[in-house]
Amino acid sequence: MTALRVIPLGGLGEIGRNMMLYEYGEDMIAVDVGLMFPEEEMLGVDLVIPEITYVMDDPSKLKAVFLTHGHEDHIGALPFLLKEVNVPVFCTRLTRGLVEVKLREHKLHQTAQVNVVEVGQTVNVGAFGVEFFSVSHSIPDAAGLIVHTPLGPVVHTGDFKIDHTPVMDQHTDLQRLAEIGREGALLLAMDSTYVEIEGYTPSEQTVAESLDRAIADAPDRVIVTTFASLISRIQMVIDAAEKHGRRVFVTGRSMVNNVQMARDLGYLRVPAGIMMNAREMTEHPTAKTVIICTGSQGEPTSALTRMANGTHQNVTIQRDDTVILSSNPVPGNEMLVYRNIDNLYRAGAHVIYNRLAPVHVRGHASQEELKIIHRIVRPRHFIGIHGEYRHLVLHRQLAISLGMSEEDAITMTNGDVLEIDEDGARIVDQVSAEYVYVDGLGVGDVDHIVLRDRQHLASDGMVVVVVALNRQLGELLRPPEVMSHGFVGPEEEPEIIEGVQSVVMNVLGGERQHVDWTGIRETLKDDVATYLHQQTHRRPLVLPITVEV
Amino acid sequence: MTALRVIPLGGLGEIGRNMMLYEYGEDMIAVDVGLMFPEEEMLGVDLVIPEITYVMDDPSKLKAVFLTHGHEDHIGALPFLLKEVNVPVFCTRLTRGLVEVKLREHKLHQTAQVNVVEVGQTVNVGAFGVEFFSVSHSIPDAAGLIVHTPLGPVVHTGDFKIDHTPVMDQHTDLQRLAEIGREGALLLAMDSTYVEIEGYTPSEQTVAESLDRAIADAPDRVIVTTFASLISRIQMVIDAAEKHGRRVFVTGRSMVNNVQMARDLGYLRVPAGIMMNAREMTEHPTAKTVIICTGSQGEPTSALTRMANGTHQNVTIQRDDTVILSSNPVPGNEMLVYRNIDNLYRAGAHVIYNRLAPVHVRGHASQEELKIIHRIVRPRHFIGIHGEYRHLVLHRQLAISLGMSEEDAITMTNGDVLEIDEDGARIVDQVSAEYVYVDGLGVGDVDHIVLRDRQHLASDGMVVVVVALNRQLGELLRPPEVMSHGFVGPEEEPEIIEGVQSVVMNVLGGERQHVDWTGIRETLKDDVATYLHQQTHRRPLVLPITVEV
Repeated sequence: MTALRVIPLGGLGEIGRNMMLYEYGEDMIAVDVGLMFPEEEMLGVDLVIPEITYVMDDPSKLKAVFLTHGHEDHIGALPFLLKEVNVPVFCTRLTRGLVEVKLREHKLHQTAQVNVVEVGQTVNVGAFGVEFFSVSHSIPDAAGLIVHTPLGPVVHTGDFKIDHTPVMDQHTDLQRLAEIGREGALLLAMDSTYVEIEGYTPSEQTVAESLDRAIADAPDRVIVTTFASLISRIQMVIDAAEKHGRRVFVTGRSMVNNVQMARDLGYLRVPAGIMMNAREMTEHPTAKTVIICTGSQGEPTSALTRMANGTHQNVTIQRDDTVILSSNPVPGNEMLVYRNIDNLYRAGAHVIYNRLAPVHVRGHASQEELKIIHRIVRPRHFIGIHGEYRHLVLHRQLAISLGMSEEDAITMTNGDVLEIDEDGARIVDQVSAEYVYVDGLGVGDVDHIVLRDRQHLASDGMVVVVVALNRQLGELLRPPEVMSHGFVGPEEEPEIIEGVQSVVMNVLGGERQHVDWTGIRETLKDDVATYLHQQTHRRPLVLPITVEV
Repeated sequence: MTALRVIPLGGLGEIGRNMMLYEYGEDMIAVDVGLMFPEEEMLGVDLVIPEITYVMDDPSKLKAVFLTHGHEDHIGALPFLLKEVNVPVFCTRLTRGLVEVKLREHKLHQTAQVNVVEVGQTVNVGAFGVEFFSVSHSIPDAAGLIVHTPLGPVVHTGDFKIDHTPVMDQHTDLQRLAEIGREGALLLAMDSTYVEIEGYTPSEQTVAESLDRAIADAPDRVIVTTFASLISRIQMVIDAAEKHGRRVFVTGRSMVNNVQMARDLGYLRVPAGIMMNAREMTEHPTAKTVIICTGSQGEPTSALTRMANGTHQNVTIQRDDTVILSSNPVPGNEMLVYRNIDNLYRAGAHVIYNRLAPVHVRGHASQEELKIIHRIVRPRHFIGIHGEYRHLVLHRQLAISLGMSEEDAITMTNGDVLEIDEDGARIVDQVSAEYVYVDGLGVGDVDHIVLRDRQHLASDGMVVVVVALNRQLGELLRPPEVMSHGFVGPEEEPEIIEGVQSVVMNVLGGERQHVDWTGIRETLKDDVATYLHQQTHRRPLVLPITVEV
């Protein structure tokens, strides 16, 4: 009896970097290939992507990639996978639009095969039939997948919520899920991001009303920021602008690109004549202007951050501007976002953010919505996906509280191999599923040693000691040269340098003949480090350089 | 007519580092001298303290320091001030206990003059009479101050909330405030930390009930973490342990010290025989054990973090341990706290934190409490203190919404000089009130240049190029030596080093006589940096070292 193997390479026990493998016999498919933005201590790292060693062990097995929606944490690492193994990709139309931008940056757009699938359609690859179903989420064209396998269907929700009054008419297809549930689902793999939140996630409609009111009441210019992929939110702002006789200016690279792409593909309804360019904006009355911009996460180079800091090319914050943050800070970005809010207030703006008015709702299902899916799918087995480890544990507890047995509700972690057959489901193996760091052009070369060195340099800087020796005479050719970076301020530096020079002279001087030339760098390093710690209680990286002539 | 001058040196437009000066004629007093914990980009910085240049311009003016309560953000920078100007300090008894620990560390306990004041008492210094009044806050013996001046009384709340059922019988003295209000207050300077929060902050009593239930229901050992200064919370845990027949083990340096100090001063009621030492704990049944420990903010070396990581000396997390986080993450600490929670779940513990059960309440007043103080004090002028800039703006709006005039409700920022006389209040000047960074033994020497260098080193590491030249012959004495730290991984390094060596040879080789020896370091630096960026898209710090013989 062949078993179904389920192998998460990312997205379990972490937010982002989502990637899941389903494997049956000689066939394997991947669902999503996302990236994660680096955490604080991953110094200098640009992106974190899944490790695909397991896939590359036998790349011929991988038949296709399926993408649930176009967010970075679900598609961002796709180019890195396709460079290694160029399999067909299947996704909805808007997702393809977003993927193509990315493939072009990586010069893969000529070779990659990205196919559009409509919800309701099924793609057959090897042993699998992969059916797309519609879900509500904070981006249009989001889909969940029903992976039909010889052992029964797997429901893989992707990111979703249940919104009965969505703005762009995109419902989570409860009927199809109920059908699958009646037929008997083998496995439910469900979004767990907001399992800590009681009750229901409010509808996007509530945000539409808040935004409309805020724009109606604004005394002068309005500036709105949100996620560039949150097309439905951008639509709301355009609708409110139209209703209140305002024109719209879009700024920030990703916002401009996404608005353009969404217009081209028909996902954004933009009334004729409502969009302005920069020249028109300077001539248009500010009280009739709405600016939509990037910067909802306080990104340092984004449009809103530049405005808050007074360095934006076209927009200077004026007293009585109203700035609306139609977004929540993603965990880790709180300080940046609140710093922008403070700076906007300093510049005299009114600021409307989620603590003050309901100008944002979450894109993920809360507890009551999760329960609905559990009840209508009634799967044989359950795993929580998309979430930190605590979310997966809590989601399992939720499943058990709804009547599932302890053995059938499983908490997995990245790299676990779950085997399911008619006898049940169990974790049978572990494959490598580490963080792979992307830094500049390097993929995977930055490891924990490089990061530890960066951490060391970051916390106390460095001191270089250059010693030129005449080896034969055992004499210094010149006074030792000492340089520091990121260690002490300019006023303190001369005294420290002088002190280090005496330490060096001590090491080398005196009983010259006894100096252990081979260990000289180690001795210098230790003695200088000890001296510097005594003087400053700091531990810079000490780099002794000896030039022997 | 002499005016009252109000000069915040910290705590306005930032959380922490609270310090306020009140000045009348030749007399000046300071209220609180707190520190701030460094933000993410303040690499390697240990503490941030207020700049006291203004005080030191005429130190004889400063007559005394008054402390509202014993939290670090109100007392932590006191030793740095007293080292410069040793004036008397006045505070309540527990605050003195906490201050003395700190002064001892700085070897100031022999010289400092720290005087205990009871609430209700008034201390006269120069033109000022400073009266202490009781407030509820998340530490015992917290006080607000009524600063009596020739122009009328100033109410300086310090941190506070209104709790009608406090656990240690510490009420905010609304009666005295109402009395001051009836007599006519000149200025109200009020805590703004939670002005964004609607309604009331719940009573500590609600936490007592949740903790009691959690400890009663726990299947096996219980581990509780909270702020080490939150004595009332520690009391609740001891009370619940006693009620449910459990004994208590305390671990983590600051928790052990604070529990000891609070017992000695009579702030903690510890039934005889309930406390255990480490040896007793290992022999005591786990189902009858409660551990109180540090680590509520995910601090890397704290007891709870060690337990979560499996590296604690005495405590290994077992399946069915219950861990209670009776605290919220302070902004900026979210990632560390949630990482601990995830790791505790991985180790098999049950975890109870604030998203799941009401095991913590805030220590600051919410909107409705702030309104009560505004209404009973009815001051001539108002300033928001303690909070980020947005909090101060929102608090001013709140004051205006309660009927105060636009001119009388003032938003100040650190260094502003507010002058108040019978004609009104206005900002008349700005004094320097920058961040002063403490790093090791250095106070103030780490500046933005040092931090910029650390940032640079942190993001891409460094590359050192050593070139030994015979200047007369214009020849290299040996092949250039190249070293890197925090730049690339060990596998990539040899190729990069070889590449840098050729770049160096190119710069120095060829038409030897044309080499500009004086600019050689700059040329090497530029060429190597360009090469490295081409190869890696990273920008390490390049340090060329030339030794000429």
